[in-house]
Amino acid sequence: MLDLVVMKFGGSSVANTEKIINVATRVTDKSKKYRVVVVVSAPGDMTDDLIDKAKSINESPDPREMDMLLATGEMQSIALLSMAIKSKGFNAISLTGPQAGIYADSVHTKAKIKKIRPKKIVTELQKGKIVIVAGFQGLNPNDDIATLGRGGSDLTAVALAAALKAKECEIYTDVNGVYTTDPRLIPEAKRLDKISYDEMLELAGVGSQVMMSRSIEVAKKYNVDIHVRSTFSDANGTIITKEVPKMEDVVVSGVAYDKNEAKLSVTDIPDKPGIAAKIFGALSKKNINVDMIIQSAAREKYNDISFTVSKNDLKNATSILKQISRTLNAGPVIYDENVAKISIVGIGMRSHSGVAAKMFKILANEGINIQMISTSEIKISCIISNKDTNRAVRILHKQFGLG
Amino acid sequence: MLDLVVMKFGGSSVANTEKIINVATRVTDKSKKYRVVVVVSAPGDMTDDLIDKAKSINESPDPREMDMLLATGEMQSIALLSMAIKSKGFNAISLTGPQAGIYADSVHTKAKIKKIRPKKIVTELQKGKIVIVAGFQGLNPNDDIATLGRGGSDLTAVALAAALKAKECEIYTDVNGVYTTDPRLIPEAKRLDKISYDEMLELAGVGSQVMMSRSIEVAKKYNVDIHVRSTFSDANGTIITKEVPKMEDVVVSGVAYDKNEAKLSVTDIPDKPGIAAKIFGALSKKNINVDMIIQSAAREKYNDISFTVSKNDLKNATSILKQISRTLNAGPVIYDENVAKISIVGIGMRSHSGVAAKMFKILANEGINIQMISTSEIKISCIISNKDTNRAVRILHKQFGLG
Repeated sequence: MLDLVVMKFGGSSVANTEKIINVATRVTDKSKKYRVVVVVSAPGDMTDDLIDKAKSINESPDPREMDMLLATGEMQSIALLSMAIKSKGFNAISLTGPQAGIYADSVHTKAKIKKIRPKKIVTELQKGKIVIVAGFQGLNPNDDIATLGRGGSDLTAVALAAALKAKECEIYTDVNGVYTTDPRLIPEAKRLDKISYDEMLELAGVGSQVMMSRSIEVAKKYNVDIHVRSTFSDANGTIITKEVPKMEDVVVSGVAYDKNEAKLSVTDIPDKPGIAAKIFGALSKKNINVDMIIQSAAREKYNDISFTVSKNDLKNATSILKQISRTLNAGPVIYDENVAKISIVGIGMRSHSGVAAKMFKILANEGINIQMISTSEIKISCIISNKDTNRAVRILHKQFGLG
Repeated sequence: MLDLVVMKFGGSSVANTEKIINVATRVTDKSKKYRVVVVVSAPGDMTDDLIDKAKSINESPDPREMDMLLATGEMQSIALLSMAIKSKGFNAISLTGPQAGIYADSVHTKAKIKKIRPKKIVTELQKGKIVIVAGFQGLNPNDDIATLGRGGSDLTAVALAAALKAKECEIYTDVNGVYTTDPRLIPEAKRLDKISYDEMLELAGVGSQVMMSRSIEVAKKYNVDIHVRSTFSDANGTIITKEVPKMEDVVVSGVAYDKNEAKLSVTDIPDKPGIAAKIFGALSKKNINVDMIIQSAAREKYNDISFTVSKNDLKNATSILKQISRTLNAGPVIYDENVAKISIVGIGMRSHSGVAAKMFKILANEGINIQMISTSEIKISCIISNKDTNRAVRILHKQFGLG
């Protein structure tokens, strides 16, 4: 029996007739050597357009109805792609998420996959068909369609690859792999042949747009090799895989940046127990995710607490903090939107000491001021002024030998 | 328990946000006095647009995939209408055809409804919800979505009204009922308060655009009262219902016309058995429907056979007939596109003799030549020259006392 490959194409790859036919060609070429399951997203901007339409009717649309609406995008993609493959003389069948046996929990618009029963997929593969599955959707315990939220189509692909024990999960995208840093910013950026799940997870967490953490987590758990590659070229991309010993020779494998965060501080907080819990509890209640947190050492019984949030959440977070500040008798709430988070990631850090010190020194030599720092086992992130971003990425990329 | 009403809205009623909100108002007003099940079509031109898109990818798209594609139109309508109803503070839930328990046969793109198991609808009604069902679709024996073909949403509505023993099935449309003839043509046309299933069936068969025969047949079988009325007004429309005695006082209840037919003749056919079977068998094989048929009396062992087909089929039919004419040693095939079918319908004809004669005399007095005639128990149709259509409709409408 031929090996199985899962191929996933995003919305920009199926945005119009010409592009759908191009995807059909890639799929049928692949099917000459492999059994193929394809996962597709909704065409182009359709999901955004449907969300706009819903909001024009109801400012906070019912999540179940939102999922009924949004699921139509992927259904259109799978039907059209199946038609395109058939017109090339190959046999194909489209399956919705529920038909494909993808079972989700009941949290509409951001459901998690609970289990996969790919019986129908297996049956159709056995008939020699190319199976095309709608990404981003599953059946929930109420027999309703639920969508999987951001990165949902990648998740569908990785989860199917795990359930079907695929040789590889190919993620087709408009870049041809994972780079040492953003190639639009730094022309010397190099494509990585391989990267470990852990490094990719850290990169996803610090602004790399290639894949969301949730898909990589599933790939890591089930040991699925992900191949990130270009929709428009046959060249190999980057394999995201489990850690291999020789990887550790490379200290740092990537530099990432994220301009989508804003810094907030509550100043002059009386130093009493439970203050941090109060602040972050209130933000969490409003579903505002907090990233880096720094609490300054107490000086004369007063603290400052600073942290970063997504720029979208800044307005809400500020108004919540102002209320809390009043009830705590604390000082003014200040914020800064003109910041960027810059990060270096690499599993080599584990065995190489002094990486953080080297990063700080490189930035200092460039006269770039570090406002906040956070570290993990294989990642170091700094908040700097937005205007220094490009310069910082360029110099770190060069000094860590990635060019 | 409140009576149940099924309300059906076509695609033009849900073509944009403003119209969807208008429909939501009609539905919520109704729900103050009735339990309500709503059936909707795909928004505006969406179905046609999707068909065009499919054909740009594959000239003869796979019917199963076509249904996967087309079903998304109604799914968008039900989700958006449900959101609109909820934003007015009412409780609602949208259901796809499969979720609503509509089971179809396996003929994709023109499936028939096999049975309805409305358990989920009943449960949601019991919770006090307005239930919104996607028209035009059901689940087939392969667990695939199948669409019901032309007039499918009306059929969904009537079948649900039968299964749920609804008090009435309301068909909302852009006219406010069934008229004695086309009011765009004859301003004196009158709206009928009531019309029988049989009369409506005949009208549907002779060019009236209000409803397709298949829905009326189901309504007749299960004795469902259909109320055809305007989306944009509260005025009563026309009730399509079972025959009531006093209806018979009216001899003729409507005059209809159809400019979409063309006349074809095969001339000088040697008079042998099996000729008609050969001609109409060949047309049927190519799915060409034939309407009126006239075989002239044999003169010197030669026959002419004339009949009408839809104008769309004229080209195909002509080329088939030319081949057959050659193999039969018959004469030339002639056709005429400039014809119209004009019909009078009324259950009163059954008990009133001379109706046909009166129709022919009225036309003759106007100098309108009759080219073909066909009759049923409650209908008389004539083929006349296209240019005489308006004059014929006007004079028949007047002389049969419908003005």
